Amino acid sequence: METHEPRVHAAWLPPEAFRSLGARRVLVHGEGLLVDTVLDEVSRACARYGGRVWHSPSWDVDVDLVLALRGAGELPNPAVEAARSAGEAALAEIGDGEPLGEEGFLLDRDGEVTVVLADAPAGLLYGLFHVVRLCAAAFDPARPPERHRPALRRRMLNHWDNVAVHPVMGQVERGYAGGSIFWRDGRPRGDLARVRAYGRLLAASGVNAISVNNVNVARTEALLLTDRLGDVAEIADALRPYGIRVHLSVSFAAPVLLGGLSTADPLDEGVRDWWVATTRRVYDRIPDFGGYLVKADSEGQPGPFTYGRDHADGANLLAEALAPHGGVVHWRAFVYDHHQDWRDRSTDRARAAYDHFTPLDGRFRTNVVLQVKYGPVDFQTREPVSPVFAAMPATRLALELQVTQEYTGQQRHICHLGPWWGEVLRFAPWGPGGRTIADVAVGEAGAGGGLVAVTNTGDDPFWTGHPLAQANLYTFGRLAWDPWRDPTEVLDEWMTLTFPPSATADPELVRRTLHEIMDDSWRTYERYTAPLGVGFMVHPGDHYGPDVDGYEYSRWGTYHFADRDGVGVDRSRASGTGFAGQYPPYWAQVYESPRTCPDEVLLFFHHVPYSHVLHNGSTVIQHIYDTHFAGVEEVETMRRRWRTLNGMIDPTVYERVAERLDEQVRCATEWRDQVNTYFFRKSGVPDAQGRRIY
Amino acid sequence: METHEPRVHAAWLPPEAFRSLGARRVLVHGEGLLVDTVLDEVSRACARYGGRVWHSPSWDVDVDLVLALRGAGELPNPAVEAARSAGEAALAEIGDGEPLGEEGFLLDRDGEVTVVLADAPAGLLYGLFHVVRLCAAAFDPARPPERHRPALRRRMLNHWDNVAVHPVMGQVERGYAGGSIFWRDGRPRGDLARVRAYGRLLAASGVNAISVNNVNVARTEALLLTDRLGDVAEIADALRPYGIRVHLSVSFAAPVLLGGLSTADPLDEGVRDWWVATTRRVYDRIPDFGGYLVKADSEGQPGPFTYGRDHADGANLLAEALAPHGGVVHWRAFVYDHHQDWRDRSTDRARAAYDHFTPLDGRFRTNVVLQVKYGPVDFQTREPVSPVFAAMPATRLALELQVTQEYTGQQRHICHLGPWWGEVLRFAPWGPGGRTIADVAVGEAGAGGGLVAVTNTGDDPFWTGHPLAQANLYTFGRLAWDPWRDPTEVLDEWMTLTFPPSATADPELVRRTLHEIMDDSWRTYERYTAPLGVGFMVHPGDHYGPDVDGYEYSRWGTYHFADRDGVGVDRSRASGTGFAGQYPPYWAQVYESPRTCPDEVLLFFHHVPYSHVLHNGSTVIQHIYDTHFAGVEEVETMRRRWRTLNGMIDPTVYERVAERLDEQVRCATEWRDQVNTYFFRKSGVPDAQGRRIY
Repeated sequence: METHEPRVHAAWLPPEAFRSLGARRVLVHGEGLLVDTVLDEVSRACARYGGRVWHSPSWDVDVDLVLALRGAGELPNPAVEAARSAGEAALAEIGDGEPLGEEGFLLDRDGEVTVVLADAPAGLLYGLFHVVRLCAAAFDPARPPERHRPALRRRMLNHWDNVAVHPVMGQVERGYAGGSIFWRDGRPRGDLARVRAYGRLLAASGVNAISVNNVNVARTEALLLTDRLGDVAEIADALRPYGIRVHLSVSFAAPVLLGGLSTADPLDEGVRDWWVATTRRVYDRIPDFGGYLVKADSEGQPGPFTYGRDHADGANLLAEALAPHGGVVHWRAFVYDHHQDWRDRSTDRARAAYDHFTPLDGRFRTNVVLQVKYGPVDFQTREPVSPVFAAMPATRLALELQVTQEYTGQQRHICHLGPWWGEVLRFAPWGPGGRTIADVAVGEAGAGGGLVAVTNTGDDPFWTGHPLAQANLYTFGRLAWDPWRDPTEVLDEWMTLTFPPSATADPELVRRTLHEIMDDSWRTYERYTAPLGVGFMVHPGDHYGPDVDGYEYSRWGTYHFADRDGVGVDRSRASGTGFAGQYPPYWAQVYESPRTCPDEVLLFFHHVPYSHVLHNGSTVIQHIYDTHFAGVEEVETMRRRWRTLNGMIDPTVYERVAERLDEQVRCATEWRDQVNTYFFRKSGVPDAQGRRIY
Repeated sequence: METHEPRVHAAWLPPEAFRSLGARRVLVHGEGLLVDTVLDEVSRACARYGGRVWHSPSWDVDVDLVLALRGAGELPNPAVEAARSAGEAALAEIGDGEPLGEEGFLLDRDGEVTVVLADAPAGLLYGLFHVVRLCAAAFDPARPPERHRPALRRRMLNHWDNVAVHPVMGQVERGYAGGSIFWRDGRPRGDLARVRAYGRLLAASGVNAISVNNVNVARTEALLLTDRLGDVAEIADALRPYGIRVHLSVSFAAPVLLGGLSTADPLDEGVRDWWVATTRRVYDRIPDFGGYLVKADSEGQPGPFTYGRDHADGANLLAEALAPHGGVVHWRAFVYDHHQDWRDRSTDRARAAYDHFTPLDGRFRTNVVLQVKYGPVDFQTREPVSPVFAAMPATRLALELQVTQEYTGQQRHICHLGPWWGEVLRFAPWGPGGRTIADVAVGEAGAGGGLVAVTNTGDDPFWTGHPLAQANLYTFGRLAWDPWRDPTEVLDEWMTLTFPPSATADPELVRRTLHEIMDDSWRTYERYTAPLGVGFMVHPGDHYGPDVDGYEYSRWGTYHFADRDGVGVDRSRASGTGFAGQYPPYWAQVYESPRTCPDEVLLFFHHVPYSHVLHNGSTVIQHIYDTHFAGVEEVETMRRRWRTLNGMIDPTVYERVAERLDEQVRCATEWRDQVNTYFFRKSGVPDAQGRRIY
């Protein structure tokens, strides 16, 4: 542990969150690394709040809470045994006899005793955190039995952390929370206590896998697979007590870079042997290693195209090496031409993932997960959902979200992403009432690719730069456990944990105020930034703040085509790039026409005149003015509301958020004025309400 | 000397340039460090081309060339003495009895002997380089006597070199020629032979002063004044043999940063004492130290405003400390609000230097030189000449030029700046026929502030990145010696030296081709970039390539206000910012009206409709299209012409230029298409010639 570490914020696990549990008499029954973790957690809570703890006692004790592994045998304790039996009976009833699995648990009340049962230690740990979340309600005698199992087997965070500081991207690519938790200046950061604390927070949210280095793999990072594997093993050791498995981003060119081979051709025998042998050495060192994450043939990263092979060849090469050990390959579908010519209107970056990958459906090995960004372009505040999810039935697809707020305010703006992710997860690509994106990610019998997100965490004392951005991380974990949950309910859960009752605060008032600030903050952010789904309009490079033409003449394939008459990208089949036709018929038809296309993605699919009338009755140009004025007013209201919390919450949190709200007001005003002025100069149409446009 | 230094290009001093001199019998007469330099130069040339050299011989010799200090005494050589007497007689006749001064010389023919006379060793060195430039013509029996003295006493280059690599600006701010000649990664680069070679080139161009570190002075660089003064002294030692004095950019906060004082208030007694004592120590170490260069209260640099003092107080503080030693302060007039609000149309950055400094006229000590950028904004391809030059008659004003091509193609584009500098120097701010900018820089009896330029040199093997950019450096030196010279004549001089006759080339053909490529290259660059003097439209930050709106909503005060109806900045007195009124009456009136304002700066002074008809008969919008199409065609012609030189010149030069011409064609095309598309989208006016606008 380093000295002089600034005090690290407890996030959603403040000691007070354990207040109800900690005052109880608790019996833990079972053995294993994660059972020890449960014991540690319970012991710490009880030491603070006056409770007591026993571990598989050989004498009779009176208890309020039992946390037991089902196979751990009987105890000399009639009351406990009765409670366990009651739990087993309840499980048989509500669980249809299915096992709880590696991570599931049962919660039941039997008279005065609360029982948590699990098949495996990880389940017991998740059960413990469930008791923490429920607080006093876990001990409510009238509580009916509950069975919990994660919908998704793998709930994964990707760290875009560089080991060596990248000359452009720094220590963490798109990181807005200080440095890396794992790395600093080319070496491990050396604070394994912080890594363990991180694992604890993640486990309490539901996350069970992380990749520890950036998908853009440079020379130093490539070595993690071989020479520097020990650094990865140390992280794995620190996270294992919280049930978190470690994955590694690897370079597809590793056989050349590290192995000294002359090729990385996936069909070359020597290359295959190299991956098999290298992977075996990884598992020798880290037996529960998760697998590889690969960004190939994208934005300069090497890949199978170099050898005239396709991405199924590439992914299967690594999958074959991982299969004997139970590992998976996460293969990113983010492949597009990043040297596009803005003059060329026929190429459409939105089409790229579909065009590249759907022909390969069915060709990937079963331990390949194709990791698909939620939208067809790049993590915008609003995009249509990627059509790839409806087009690869024979491939395990993971939904890739971005918790780090690259395009959504960079943790200087409050932008709670839960509602957006909820919309994505509930989107039914085959039409209303059909299967949803959540269903695709879960897959048949849970065989889907799961949820993956680029994390927003760093070595910042608040973990996420903006203290309220912790909610995005927490929400991701909870949605990955149960993608059908209401994100606002999750947000409430986060608030209850993070802002416990205190002597100076009315917890209900705090919660209500936080809801007023956060619930609609994503839509507020959408209002004052790029309009109607057109995307980008951000400052190139750092992606922060407005620059309407910033990407308009660039090589990145991200244009809005605004001229004096109108704005938007024609992606229809009839007259545009044809992207709308990548959807199944229902949506292909809806998106095809500006008459039926939903307002919020109108400019993503159509180039329309400024006078075009939206479904909401406003013209496009008036909508731009109205939403931009409204958005800034809403941010000002946010700031006013936040100020009412002064003195009621942790002052360090209060101050940090207050500072960032000042910046959010400044930046939102800049967005409003630049966007309004830009479109007024182009269209010449005055604001119907005569407000100030510069 | 480091090993493995790539071979450094000889620039305008290839051995062949000495071919005529080197075949002669040469007598050097006099003593001194710079006389030794002359001897070295002559000896090297004669060793190569078969000539002979004597230094103040005590016996009679036959000679073709005498280089003699006037006060060096008689020689036992009747022919030489006769030639010297003839020279003295010629000097008396053409020089009106005035001394030659520290740097002047006389060139005369007496029968078979060419005589160079000088009052001081530096004059002898400049005389030698004149003989080199003249080549065989220096030995033409019919050559009449010539007397040369620099119009400007100080001919200075500013290096924006950082000692430590700056996180944003790198080793050299706005440097496009590799690293620094002086510094690398926080320490001296350690190649004093290269520094000496650099001094030799500069002396042959006429430059006699350089500042060795960036005007943005960070912590490491501040230390050059005190702890690291030895590093500066080493550079001074290496440059002294070529008559080049070293200046230092200092931080106005140095008394606080380095001296541990609590203030840097220029009226504080302790601060004055600190500067006096510190400056004395500088001169103890470097007796011919030139002085200080200061960027104060500008773009984040500290300055007297912090203490409620003005810039005269600030500059005089340093001037007072330097005065006893003969040093000068160069005080930059580049002070403006760099946190401007783009919504605020009343503030005008163009006004800033005038508004800040003209009230101080007459208050600066005589050893203060106010260093004023040629234009009111920032080194654009085209700006009106700064009105400050006509507004401070009681202040020594230096004209600051930018040899490094920050906004003019960054030494990837051929852009010969001589014609532009010529226009600036010949501009008559009080009206046609009146005194010019050159006259102001020269001043009464040579008391003006001289010429200063930000250099384009670095540790690149060609010194300047683009081999043809050497011409800009050479031209600056020659214009600083004689600001009334025709820049194209100087360019011809540079070509003759740099591309000597060879076995494979017709030197006339090479020269003619180079003239075709370079003479009009600045106007070509102007054609394909920002139109009609409006400026900027460059990519923010790196300032390379087009981004029409790149600075439109920024804090830098650089806007074009293009909307669907028109473009340009109203700087008139009647309806605009009033900047036009900063000129004396003649130009104030000319610039005031779009009817009289010259086309090339129309959009600098006026916001006009796209349909506005220029003096050249074209509309603004058609002019934009026409010049942009023409500019690219001209660059393509440049490239074609360059290719005809393949095999005729040094292949490394050929290849480097050929590569950069490919980039220039690409980038010019990008400029054309982005600018044309931008204005077509805004104006909706089609090209009258129906050419392709994307």
